[in-house]
Amino acid sequence: MSIKGKICLAGFLNAGPQGTAGWRQPGAAPDFLSAAYYARIARMLENACFDLIFIPDALAVPRSMSDSTAPAISWGAGTPRLDPMVALGAMAGVTSHIGLAATMSASFNEPYNIARSFATFDHLSSGRAAWNIVTSFQDAEAQNFGMDRLPSREKRYDRAEEVLQATTRLWDSWADDALVENRETGQFGIPEKVSDVSYCGTYVQVRGPLAVPRPPQGYPVLVQAGASSRGRDFAARWADVIFCSHESLESAIAFYTDMKSLATAYGRDPDQLKILCATCIIVGTTEEDALRKKQIAEDLVLPEAGLSRLAYHINVDLTQYDLDSPLPPLDEVGIDGHYREIVEFAQRENATLRQLGKWYGARSEGNMVGTPQQVADAMIRWQELGAADGFMIIPTHVPGAFEDIIALLLPELRRRNVVRTAYEGTTLRNHLGLARPARGAWRDRVPQSAARMNGVP
Amino acid sequence: MSIKGKICLAGFLNAGPQGTAGWRQPGAAPDFLSAAYYARIARMLENACFDLIFIPDALAVPRSMSDSTAPAISWGAGTPRLDPMVALGAMAGVTSHIGLAATMSASFNEPYNIARSFATFDHLSSGRAAWNIVTSFQDAEAQNFGMDRLPSREKRYDRAEEVLQATTRLWDSWADDALVENRETGQFGIPEKVSDVSYCGTYVQVRGPLAVPRPPQGYPVLVQAGASSRGRDFAARWADVIFCSHESLESAIAFYTDMKSLATAYGRDPDQLKILCATCIIVGTTEEDALRKKQIAEDLVLPEAGLSRLAYHINVDLTQYDLDSPLPPLDEVGIDGHYREIVEFAQRENATLRQLGKWYGARSEGNMVGTPQQVADAMIRWQELGAADGFMIIPTHVPGAFEDIIALLLPELRRRNVVRTAYEGTTLRNHLGLARPARGAWRDRVPQSAARMNGVP
Repeated sequence: MSIKGKICLAGFLNAGPQGTAGWRQPGAAPDFLSAAYYARIARMLENACFDLIFIPDALAVPRSMSDSTAPAISWGAGTPRLDPMVALGAMAGVTSHIGLAATMSASFNEPYNIARSFATFDHLSSGRAAWNIVTSFQDAEAQNFGMDRLPSREKRYDRAEEVLQATTRLWDSWADDALVENRETGQFGIPEKVSDVSYCGTYVQVRGPLAVPRPPQGYPVLVQAGASSRGRDFAARWADVIFCSHESLESAIAFYTDMKSLATAYGRDPDQLKILCATCIIVGTTEEDALRKKQIAEDLVLPEAGLSRLAYHINVDLTQYDLDSPLPPLDEVGIDGHYREIVEFAQRENATLRQLGKWYGARSEGNMVGTPQQVADAMIRWQELGAADGFMIIPTHVPGAFEDIIALLLPELRRRNVVRTAYEGTTLRNHLGLARPARGAWRDRVPQSAARMNGVP
Repeated sequence: MSIKGKICLAGFLNAGPQGTAGWRQPGAAPDFLSAAYYARIARMLENACFDLIFIPDALAVPRSMSDSTAPAISWGAGTPRLDPMVALGAMAGVTSHIGLAATMSASFNEPYNIARSFATFDHLSSGRAAWNIVTSFQDAEAQNFGMDRLPSREKRYDRAEEVLQATTRLWDSWADDALVENRETGQFGIPEKVSDVSYCGTYVQVRGPLAVPRPPQGYPVLVQAGASSRGRDFAARWADVIFCSHESLESAIAFYTDMKSLATAYGRDPDQLKILCATCIIVGTTEEDALRKKQIAEDLVLPEAGLSRLAYHINVDLTQYDLDSPLPPLDEVGIDGHYREIVEFAQRENATLRQLGKWYGARSEGNMVGTPQQVADAMIRWQELGAADGFMIIPTHVPGAFEDIIALLLPELRRRNVVRTAYEGTTLRNHLGLARPARGAWRDRVPQSAARMNGVP
């Protein structure tokens, strides 16, 4: 089967230390609290023509075990987490082409603030902004915003749905041609081309208009990673890009097929929904060299850190169970996608909780380890078999792992003509082959009942 | 009388068009929606050794007259307003010394998000961040956050007080030496040196800790502009820098004296509270040249835009009254400082509302217009007479007015040895001569009753 398009490449970058123990690697830079660090990585990935840089986020120091922040702080796992918008602001100023995606929680931010930050960011980056929409997954985050526990997934998605309806209307509040800036007459804008929003939901209400003209991309690129059934429905309607994580090629194909069908069922062109698989790529000059690098990364992970990371992702403290027993069935978990993966692994390997913890700490999502030829083969295979439109590349450490990927893997991918060698356009939508939404495009993303409910004819 | 210290210089910069009609000037740059614009201004003011750049903010398109956004959009008055944090992020990446102040509303942001944004910003700028604390002043802002009207000033300050107590504790949640990053042992941080915050107020609750290590400056520099009695009490305790605006030297001296006494009464060293007066500086090669520039700026202001600007600042639509009648007494106004100024002007000039509107549209706060010698004389006089520690310089247009000030006024100020010619340190606290707060310094800023209320021994 031939490859239809190029493989999208996204670089996953924590605004803080990388991975469970990536900061311990000799090739890890220690200056992740400085603007220079973010500027350097941004320039490096732009020179390599990556589509985008993606910064994840969470609004708390993880309380991964027994309600304590000690594991996260001791091992540098999931903390610190700087504000992604500020880090990306520093990146925007020193780059001109690469897309810049920031995570922002729809649960703990107001739509006016979200819409304004991303509209500003899209203007200042000349159309390179993306918003990774999350609903947050830890009780520790809720506790930083006056709640004891996280609202249920259903309620979080109910609110996220409203936040998307409000933010897209805010981005649409100025027509693309509302600004005239006529210095002679003194007319700055055309009031008839700027509308109130008057969105009135159960969770959020906003009158508008936004105090920022329509973003260069219409809407910033919308990214979403929900793997739960509610998350899939949300992503099939709203997302331009889905970021997912799979324990096998089979489950990746099943997810990809499901999401493209769902998007089609909602009347969308499935090609306008790009699916990026999280992949930890470890590339070496030989297979042995790659495996040696993988071993170094694994050896640095303390076993306790593994259980802590698992507890963090699924928002359940598994140390309350006998560690030599199998994984118990769990009702409400944090990140559904990661939970599905550990269930798949635990059943296949008949693993105890202790084994599961060890594996999870050292594992890297969708590992691709080997020579440039082997990794390129795997990437192309995933794309050809309909598992992914591209990859969210998770580095074991920064900048070392990105340097390896750029020096070793990228020439091989270029040789095979599956990645770009130069940017053709300047906006992220352009890089990804995504159409620019016209004003009012949100109407196509909203279920009819909800649209009627909120006063849309 | 001799000058004790240098005169502080701050540059006032909208994240959008400047002033009521500054965008119409030939010397105004049209690219205020680009990162290049902010980078250029930041470099220019850093080369001139300014202490800081200050970006004001408001969370709505002004509805200055008859609840309509049309005047603001038609005349480019107070809109667009980009997110200051993103603009300053772009500035932080291309500068190394100048301080960077962003306005953020304590009324419409959660303390965890505020604390994290400014902590990030202080790290990425290596200690150059400042937070201008506002409580917001327009009903239009409240309407973007699910309310019909703005809460009363008392309630807004009650909340702001809690937000400050929560954010300072969050900045203190990591000890300065909590990070060890020992790559050999795998110990990243010392859990005993990171504390929960567990702040539980009436308006805000946050458990903490912050997911960002203690900022380089301890706390970012805290800026406040409240001129109401409640605002003065708040500023006397919390502010490192007060930004004020006066209609005369006399009222400036009265305010300065009052604020320094209040700070002293609260047990603070009054020299650790810097007072910057807003001043629109128009400088020319001759007095005629300066007056000509002033005339150009005034001629560009449409009379309707003046009334609209006044209504915007005081949150009262004065077109409901007979325009040929005097200013009626008003109960609850938006910005108390501006209200005091118009009352002073209206009484002195026996002005009608129509005359008041015309004057207000063309006026610039604390105008200093003249030759470099005349303006330098005025600045030094204000400082010597105890009206100001420095000036918040409001440009009629950008970059033109800053270019004039740097080319004409700065050499004169340097000749008189009242401004720096090089930065001595790298942090904003250093530039301003402000001490770095130790962990727990918030205790000295909190009234005893409030501290007891929230569980502090």
